[in-house]
Amino acid sequence: MQIYIGNKNYSSWSMRPWVLLRQFGIPFDEVMVRFDSFDAGSVFKTTLARVTPTGTVPVLVDDGGLAVWDTLAIAEYLAERHPERALWPRDARQRARARSVCAEMHAGFRALRSACPMNIEASLPEVGAQVLAEQPAVQADLDRLVALWSEALADSGGPFLFGTFTIADAYFAPVVSRLRTYALPVPPVVADWMAQVWAAPGVAAWVAEALAERDFLDFEEPYRTAR
Amino acid sequence: MQIYIGNKNYSSWSMRPWVLLRQFGIPFDEVMVRFDSFDAGSVFKTTLARVTPTGTVPVLVDDGGLAVWDTLAIAEYLAERHPERALWPRDARQRARARSVCAEMHAGFRALRSACPMNIEASLPEVGAQVLAEQPAVQADLDRLVALWSEALADSGGPFLFGTFTIADAYFAPVVSRLRTYALPVPPVVADWMAQVWAAPGVAAWVAEALAERDFLDFEEPYRTAR
Repeated sequence: MQIYIGNKNYSSWSMRPWVLLRQFGIPFDEVMVRFDSFDAGSVFKTTLARVTPTGTVPVLVDDGGLAVWDTLAIAEYLAERHPERALWPRDARQRARARSVCAEMHAGFRALRSACPMNIEASLPEVGAQVLAEQPAVQADLDRLVALWSEALADSGGPFLFGTFTIADAYFAPVVSRLRTYALPVPPVVADWMAQVWAAPGVAAWVAEALAERDFLDFEEPYRTAR
Repeated sequence: MQIYIGNKNYSSWSMRPWVLLRQFGIPFDEVMVRFDSFDAGSVFKTTLARVTPTGTVPVLVDDGGLAVWDTLAIAEYLAERHPERALWPRDARQRARARSVCAEMHAGFRALRSACPMNIEASLPEVGAQVLAEQPAVQADLDRLVALWSEALADSGGPFLFGTFTIADAYFAPVVSRLRTYALPVPPVVADWMAQVWAAPGVAAWVAEALAERDFLDFEEPYRTAR
């Protein structure tokens, strides 16, 4: 099984399935395709065109050559293949809630995602404070995330959103990174969960490799001029 | 089990789970919450606030009071509850592909969705021709949809995307409506599938009720001034 991903420091969508695979000890081969111009003839696009009709990362290619694109479909595929590992919560109601919050993340929180792109190695607290002050839609996204996380943690008792680490925690791991980079304020119960996510082996492994990349891509850097 | 939905003529996200329930003969109670101003004190928002943290439709409320929001999570919930009905394709590889295209739909095709809002009763072929001529991003969305549908139909042999009617067909049913309203051009194999989707009992029932609504909401009507 291969998983095609983009730069670890920047590619928030790639992070989700990779973290999931590592956290649950599922063997895989990584194919890292560095972000470039994304033009039709670029290395990125020609490499991806060979394996997926969408030309985007992440994509999982199983041993039979089947391409599964999109993080949610990859998560469901892995959960089905490894029922013994409880990638989703085992309780049906908790599973329905976990899927609801992942689907909400999948299509939502666009203001936060646009204003605060993932940049694991960067520390931009002043930018975060300014964004929150000037963009009410980002504050609204943050408020909804805090409510969503707080409710799940109160219901499950933690330490992760639905008790043990599940797809939902992997799904929000890139958001945890954004909140750290831009130092967005959260209540203690959320800060504690964020620390747990950051320390989870699958997340920690991704972050360590992201910090080792030392790449700088202008189009991913609205706020920095250099590393 | 209750499903909260918006106007049948306009609410493309509501259409998906409702069609799924009807098509597969799963009993449910419908709660129709008419679109209004969406202000904090509006009937729409106060009604939804009682059942879902997101305040949006669709939301499924099961008999124990569990809220499942977001169409993808609702689809997975129903598929799990009714394994005998094959809401997803029974073949694991086909299921992975079906989930990939649904997830792609869930977060994508924004140009088409924005330029061609669902409006089941309307016929706007001139608008469709103009939009396609002026907005390359809409043409690109249409090209990707046609490729995606054509590939699935070629693989499965039809008549639906993955053979029998599945969640994937319900997921694209509102897109079929858009292509009809705006008369966007598609190849014969896609036109044949669109006709099958339109004739499927769950879709036909929704469309009939949409046509009976006779409501007109300014903010859903960028192109018409009256019914």
